[in-house]
Amino acid sequence: MRLAELSEHSGVSTATIKYYLREGLLPPGRQVNATTAEYDAEHVRRLRLVRAMIQVGRMPVATAREVLRHVDDDSLGRTIRLGAALWALPQVPEPDEDDAFVRAAHREAGALLESLGWTNSMMLTTVSPAYRSLVVAIAAFRRLGYDWDAQRLLLYARLMHEAAGLDLDFVESQPSEAEKAECAVVSAVLIEPMLQALHRLAQEEESARRYGFE
Amino acid sequence: MRLAELSEHSGVSTATIKYYLREGLLPPGRQVNATTAEYDAEHVRRLRLVRAMIQVGRMPVATAREVLRHVDDDSLGRTIRLGAALWALPQVPEPDEDDAFVRAAHREAGALLESLGWTNSMMLTTVSPAYRSLVVAIAAFRRLGYDWDAQRLLLYARLMHEAAGLDLDFVESQPSEAEKAECAVVSAVLIEPMLQALHRLAQEEESARRYGFE
Repeated sequence: MRLAELSEHSGVSTATIKYYLREGLLPPGRQVNATTAEYDAEHVRRLRLVRAMIQVGRMPVATAREVLRHVDDDSLGRTIRLGAALWALPQVPEPDEDDAFVRAAHREAGALLESLGWTNSMMLTTVSPAYRSLVVAIAAFRRLGYDWDAQRLLLYARLMHEAAGLDLDFVESQPSEAEKAECAVVSAVLIEPMLQALHRLAQEEESARRYGFE
Repeated sequence: MRLAELSEHSGVSTATIKYYLREGLLPPGRQVNATTAEYDAEHVRRLRLVRAMIQVGRMPVATAREVLRHVDDDSLGRTIRLGAALWALPQVPEPDEDDAFVRAAHREAGALLESLGWTNSMMLTTVSPAYRSLVVAIAAFRRLGYDWDAQRLLLYARLMHEAAGLDLDFVESQPSEAEKAECAVVSAVLIEPMLQALHRLAQEEESARRYGFE
């Protein structure tokens, strides 16, 4: 298909497609003559992925390019390919390791992973941004003086593990290995806002059930 | 206690406390003479709440003041008090109601609430920002052409409902009605980043379990 059709098919303007081509986010089409290139279904799919990252996930172009490099590198295992997208999402600030609350939060997070039996995560604590985010979140609770028991954290973690299982089932339902890698990126970007919306809605629902609207 | 002790007790600098006092986020102390005021445990608690909103939740000062007005209004029911905090959190952009994907997402979200039996939420669809966020998230999935079945959405929603039950149990564990209202605000600000971190960590763990690290 020509550029105009690619635009129509994807709902992305030709100006935006040209921008993505210039930035190397979309591979060039097959040149049929000096002024015309031909695009195919691969381009439609790649465009979908780029929109998910940039328009929905608000990733900077350089980050999106970095993620695509991982997605296209089929020498990588699926865990790393999924990680490439997850680790490129906006992260919380680094924990301040000199802070007593942060040090306590590290111990608490470590104990949590052990109770959960998340042995893989236990190996990643020094490199995983998700682990650092957890430490920052626990430290914030503690710093405000809340008595937040370890049992409660364990229950939340189990719920999130079930959600993660659903995420990966969705990724696995994609037909090809390349589409699985793309879907991992898209779902990293799209599932979080979905869960957040459902969580807030559930809080409203549950609150209304317990206390009514009066 | 004096200002210096309040600062020590709360870990907030005297300059920041004075700023919060000027902005009306913290009620004035009891004036003991022209230059000295006396603060009490209520001030320590209120300071904790203000820090949760501004330092952790990055709420603008005007929003924080608005939320406090609701927290302090004990003529309001607990649902509204909790809502005051939830609705003041940063929201996604409004859905474009002329967009065909958005209209389809409204139908899908409505069917979801009905399947879940969330009858309270069904009454709030025209006013709840959480409902609008859900519509935006569903429309984003659809616009990217993903086949995302209704059953999967239902499973995520049930998990989030369990999480919301834990949130409210935590709020109810607080001793007084005023502290419950405060805790609802704090947990709205702190629980989301916690769940997000646990979700990302669970994705890493589950991915490593299924595919290893190769």
